Amino acid sequence: MKILVTGAAGFLGRRLIRELLARGELAGADGQPQRIEQIDAFDVVPLEGIDDPRVHATAGDISDPAQVERLIDAGTTTVFHLAAIVSGQAELEFDLGMRINFDATRALLERIRSLGTQARFVMTSSVAVFGGALPATVEDAHVWSPQSSYGTEKALADLLLADYSRRGFVDGRSLRMPTVVVRPGKPNRAASSFASGIIREPINGVDTVCPVAPQTLLWLMSPDRAIDNLVHGHELPKDKLTNGRVINMPGLSVTVEEMLASLRRIAGNEVANRVRIERDPAIERIVNSWPGNFSANYARSLGFVFDTDFDSIVRAFIADNAALAA
Amino acid sequence: MKILVTGAAGFLGRRLIRELLARGELAGADGQPQRIEQIDAFDVVPLEGIDDPRVHATAGDISDPAQVERLIDAGTTTVFHLAAIVSGQAELEFDLGMRINFDATRALLERIRSLGTQARFVMTSSVAVFGGALPATVEDAHVWSPQSSYGTEKALADLLLADYSRRGFVDGRSLRMPTVVVRPGKPNRAASSFASGIIREPINGVDTVCPVAPQTLLWLMSPDRAIDNLVHGHELPKDKLTNGRVINMPGLSVTVEEMLASLRRIAGNEVANRVRIERDPAIERIVNSWPGNFSANYARSLGFVFDTDFDSIVRAFIADNAALAA
Repeated sequence: MKILVTGAAGFLGRRLIRELLARGELAGADGQPQRIEQIDAFDVVPLEGIDDPRVHATAGDISDPAQVERLIDAGTTTVFHLAAIVSGQAELEFDLGMRINFDATRALLERIRSLGTQARFVMTSSVAVFGGALPATVEDAHVWSPQSSYGTEKALADLLLADYSRRGFVDGRSLRMPTVVVRPGKPNRAASSFASGIIREPINGVDTVCPVAPQTLLWLMSPDRAIDNLVHGHELPKDKLTNGRVINMPGLSVTVEEMLASLRRIAGNEVANRVRIERDPAIERIVNSWPGNFSANYARSLGFVFDTDFDSIVRAFIADNAALAA
Repeated sequence: MKILVTGAAGFLGRRLIRELLARGELAGADGQPQRIEQIDAFDVVPLEGIDDPRVHATAGDISDPAQVERLIDAGTTTVFHLAAIVSGQAELEFDLGMRINFDATRALLERIRSLGTQARFVMTSSVAVFGGALPATVEDAHVWSPQSSYGTEKALADLLLADYSRRGFVDGRSLRMPTVVVRPGKPNRAASSFASGIIREPINGVDTVCPVAPQTLLWLMSPDRAIDNLVHGHELPKDKLTNGRVINMPGLSVTVEEMLASLRRIAGNEVANRVRIERDPAIERIVNSWPGNFSANYARSLGFVFDTDFDSIVRAFIADNAALAA
């Protein structure tokens, strides 16, 4: 099989490609395991550091229709569509967000439709589609009411993927991801960037600011579970998807205070003291519009996995971080 | 003020224009009444039969960007966007449905954004955005899960209108309309076309087929209440719209059986006997995916109106019909 990964040079993209290479096979349309012959790794910057003959790395603009035509052909069996403009940037640059988060997704779906291959299409959506007056626990049947352009664009893409799947144009699965924590690397322009930053920076010896109140409740998933779920989302037979193609992922509900207590417990006072609370109304407005807890009953019934404690997430980050530095 | 009405030659468009002409004024952006100087009546076919110097009727393709540019200028204070491809046709002609029901709406919103006028934008959405496993009464917080491309396109447009309003690009209001019954004229390609047909045709002496089971529960609004609500949706000050810009309208929940009993009661046996039940699985699949009852608490709190019995709807149709024939 031939797999396209968009956003391949990103944090999740790289991890997903490593996981796919290690597995060596995925379920085909008939549910039987098939060898992964080729992974087309696409991003706005070229993927580097993964040296495997199966990986073909290219770079370009995913909102360019000619580019989309080159990326997907009749041999493409699966697309993992991870490319996105993050929430903070999509709020500042409306046209760019619409073009990448919605129009490019539409173009990818249209390309598969025009080829008639019904390729499997696994996409990440976001809890940012929710907002407004929210119950303590958001049920699967809760209305989408995005309070950001990023959330709007993700909801638009979800609706399209669902209808393209219903019509048999593609075999789509959209995973509504919690905030993935702890991301390595640099802060980004996601409103949720701090959720990784308040763990990553102090562990790396860097002072950092937490822009939200300690009581802020976050809905989180570790990178390991995110990759497990992306692969699981691909492997599920479509006849199991009886409640639709857009699936609220399970996650871990913790406050910022609990996250910082974990950090203190595991990494010590000196590390934990590198975090200073300095609230930023613009970030709080977006982050507080997201739910802090979900039932995710549909996803649980489908076998999607989740983290059960934040200490393990901190420990996994420290281990990954040490491996990266070594 | 200068008002654009799209879908002007349609049944609701014509009624709305007559109502606006009769009123002579609407609330301006400051809430104060302003004289209606001009109504641009646009449709794919020219509006005929309304002879008033304030009405400028033009025809064309609303999905043509140059057309949209001509339709809205810096003087356009309000848009009533009623143009749509109906559900049955949108299911058969996917590209056409997307182009008219979604892309054209986006182009209208973009045009207002580019002008910077924050024009008021009142649009009709549909209960077809709902589907899947539904409770007996759909609450305002119930998830959108369209089971048709029409419902998908309406939900896409709703999301866009909400974000454009949140960002201050337009002052949007999307009214989620029940099935409007009884429409005059000919059957159309809406899956709900029969809901008018089973009353209209027998009253006009024509035998007709009802394609759904008598127990089918429908969510209805009369043409009079639909027009009242379109005007009310325009007049509401934006600071009242605290729970968002997409509003599930109140309505009347009745079964097909109750509708036919009304017809028999009011028009007699000979008329009612002109309806024959002959179920059509394709129509039933779409119609049965729509909810038959809503709480519509938000709309009620905002003062939107609704019908309280079906007999009155039948009587109003008979009166309108007689006036039309006279």
